[in-house]
Amino acid sequence: MASGPIVLLTDYGLQDTYVGVLKGVIARIAPQATVIDLLHHVRPQQVRQGAYALWAAEPYFPDGSIFVAVVDPGVGTERRAVAVEINRKYFVAPDNGLLSFVLQRYGAERAVVLENPAYRLPVVSSTFHGRDIFAPAAAYLAQGVRLEQLGMPIAVRSLQQLPPPRCEERDGVWVGEVLHIDRFGNLITSLPAERLQIGASLQERAQWRVAVRSHIIAGISRTFADVAEGELCAYVGSDGLLEIACRNGSAAIQLQITLGESVRAWRV
Amino acid sequence: MASGPIVLLTDYGLQDTYVGVLKGVIARIAPQATVIDLLHHVRPQQVRQGAYALWAAEPYFPDGSIFVAVVDPGVGTERRAVAVEINRKYFVAPDNGLLSFVLQRYGAERAVVLENPAYRLPVVSSTFHGRDIFAPAAAYLAQGVRLEQLGMPIAVRSLQQLPPPRCEERDGVWVGEVLHIDRFGNLITSLPAERLQIGASLQERAQWRVAVRSHIIAGISRTFADVAEGELCAYVGSDGLLEIACRNGSAAIQLQITLGESVRAWRV
Amino acid sequence: MASGPIVLLTDYGLQDTYVGVLKGVIARIAPQATVIDLLHHVRPQQVRQGAYALWAAEPYFPDGSIFVAVVDPGVGTERRAVAVEINRKYFVAPDNGLLSFVLQRYGAERAVVLENPAYRLPVVSSTFHGRDIFAPAAAYLAQGVRLEQLGMPIAVRSLQQLPPPRCEERDGVWVGEVLHIDRFGNLITSLPAERLQIGASLQERAQWRVAVRSHIIAGISRTFADVAEGELCAYVGSDGLLEIACRNGSAAIQLQITLGESVRAWRV
Repeated sequence: MASGPIVLLTDYGLQDTYVGVLKGVIARIAPQATVIDLLHHVRPQQVRQGAYALWAAEPYFPDGSIFVAVVDPGVGTERRAVAVEINRKYFVAPDNGLLSFVLQRYGAERAVVLENPAYRLPVVSSTFHGRDIFAPAAAYLAQGVRLEQLGMPIAVRSLQQLPPPRCEERDGVWVGEVLHIDRFGNLITSLPAERLQIGASLQERAQWRVAVRSHIIAGISRTFADVAEGELCAYVGSDGLLEIACRNGSAAIQLQITLGESVRAWRV
Repeated sequence: MASGPIVLLTDYGLQDTYVGVLKGVIARIAPQATVIDLLHHVRPQQVRQGAYALWAAEPYFPDGSIFVAVVDPGVGTERRAVAVEINRKYFVAPDNGLLSFVLQRYGAERAVVLENPAYRLPVVSSTFHGRDIFAPAAAYLAQGVRLEQLGMPIAVRSLQQLPPPRCEERDGVWVGEVLHIDRFGNLITSLPAERLQIGASLQERAQWRVAVRSHIIAGISRTFADVAEGELCAYVGSDGLLEIACRNGSAAIQLQITLGESVRAWRV
Repeated sequence: MASGPIVLLTDYGLQDTYVGVLKGVIARIAPQATVIDLLHHVRPQQVRQGAYALWAAEPYFPDGSIFVAVVDPGVGTERRAVAVEINRKYFVAPDNGLLSFVLQRYGAERAVVLENPAYRLPVVSSTFHGRDIFAPAAAYLAQGVRLEQLGMPIAVRSLQQLPPPRCEERDGVWVGEVLHIDRFGNLITSLPAERLQIGASLQERAQWRVAVRSHIIAGISRTFADVAEGELCAYVGSDGLLEIACRNGSAAIQLQITLGESVRAWRV
């Protein structure tokens, strides 16, 4: 498996040198590696949002990609640091559920705990394992070090798991949750269009109702350009998930919604 | 024409995985390509601001650069997706005027519509053409695919055009507009120093007046270090355009200005 | 000395094309160079914060790295533009103290003033020396141009210096300053754990008191996971400096602290 790019996902933001330092550490160990910023604006310590982002983006990266995923409220505690091979890609991350949704989609090939001091920085701090443990592990993988050299194998089933994205049906009403709110204020829900069998025909789509808080949206549009300015609409987003947007406005602000709130959908 | 870097300009922001996913798509198709982030903070759907940013930055990029420009309020509608060769560089973009100011400067060599399914992702969503159409087109160009392979040629004169940046003179008063507001709150106007024949001598510059809303600034400074703290000043910015700044403050906040507002300049 | 990556630190932010244009300029001169964003969110014109960021991040970058550091309130005035070799790395920057803390740690090998027109852009603006002077100098260094070709040597001791990070002891009380506030609202102080001889044992750490404004924190924790939600804690950060955080909250907001405020620490 040839090395693909090293792909960074963190909640470090870009106001500090944290991300830059990860890249410095990688440049020292693997100067030829390509490094891609996937996302650094996961909300601080929102492991579930990070898990969604990894799940949504992973399919678009090449085989051999090495993901460094660090949303790590438990840094410095006993939580494990792991490297996992999933779907012909590597993931180095704290073992706190961040890889859950990718794991639930594919299962894992194998996993190790990152404990070989040869593949860490010489001094490991108690607050910045991205720099001291995760970035070095990824860089050594890119240099051809094998997964099993990084530490002892662990059972894949021992990896921490978050509850899967909510998607339940009862009496014809599907209930999901808001997994992500994007820059435009669009709400990305956990309801896959395929599972709800939302058809492509306009007639069929007109029969759907989507509700969040006390707001009910009638019909599922093809795109937000289909509704009037300032109006709410539901549509199938680019991940195949039901999304809620406000044309040329912010659905999140208009609806006063936060991550994790429930969303319902049904056919009339 | 050897491939230069792939240069990204979008209104996607950095809070989501959208930009990272573009890079994943590019890494799968053109793993050796250099990718440069030009700007992802165009205000959502502000095509005119994006057009200015492209115009201002393009001269500093090497021949063969491949710009992916996506500010796309009409995504999912009938607007065309195009690739255009301008000034020995490539631009892939929605045909909505985003390339206007670059086109108005150089004219285009040739243009095609992006419709060859071989150079798109297999499934094209209705909301994320950056991922499904534009990034793949750029990556294939970087891999040596020729422009004309991407789709049917179209007439350059059929490309959508925005009104050019405002710059009119009447009775000795030049009228322009605010094209961009930068991080520091500086106002970048559409008035080119060269066209207004703003001289270099201090004496000559002292004769100018620059007005925005009801504020009149006397004289054009060499740099904002020439005025006192908190004071407004006009000067010729690094693009050769007249700019208005507030030393160690924000002119945009102090003047309560938004994009598109008019600016006047005259000699006394 | 083979070229390492070109590493960018500025106060340009990411809302404008400034950073992208630096990369365009570099791509024209040194198309093979690796460019790393260290930080672009230094607060506008806060030279001291930029100096801290360089100091904190520099050790993690490889020998031969070429830092482009631009926090430049004096752009367009008589302040010099310099290139300095420090600790087997290059730094191009305005001579305004931005390199102070790195200089104070290592001393400099040699320094030149950037005045050779062959290694600048043909036209030098009075407001954007990052584009016109600093990025080209770095790119030419990456291409193998030697430091002394960039301009006349100057005495290292003539470089501007800021007062070193505050760290004074009087009657057993150490006084430092807040050097940086990170995304999480953590306060990074200028007090090195090593110099204060903060031991590793919990018993010893319990004897410390850390005060900012009128708040006194009892004890130094191993990590912020050691205290309750919403509680303030002091700990030794990943730079080896004393930091103050609020678990799952923002210490900066809770304490209403700004850069430069004083912090005290003592043993009871």
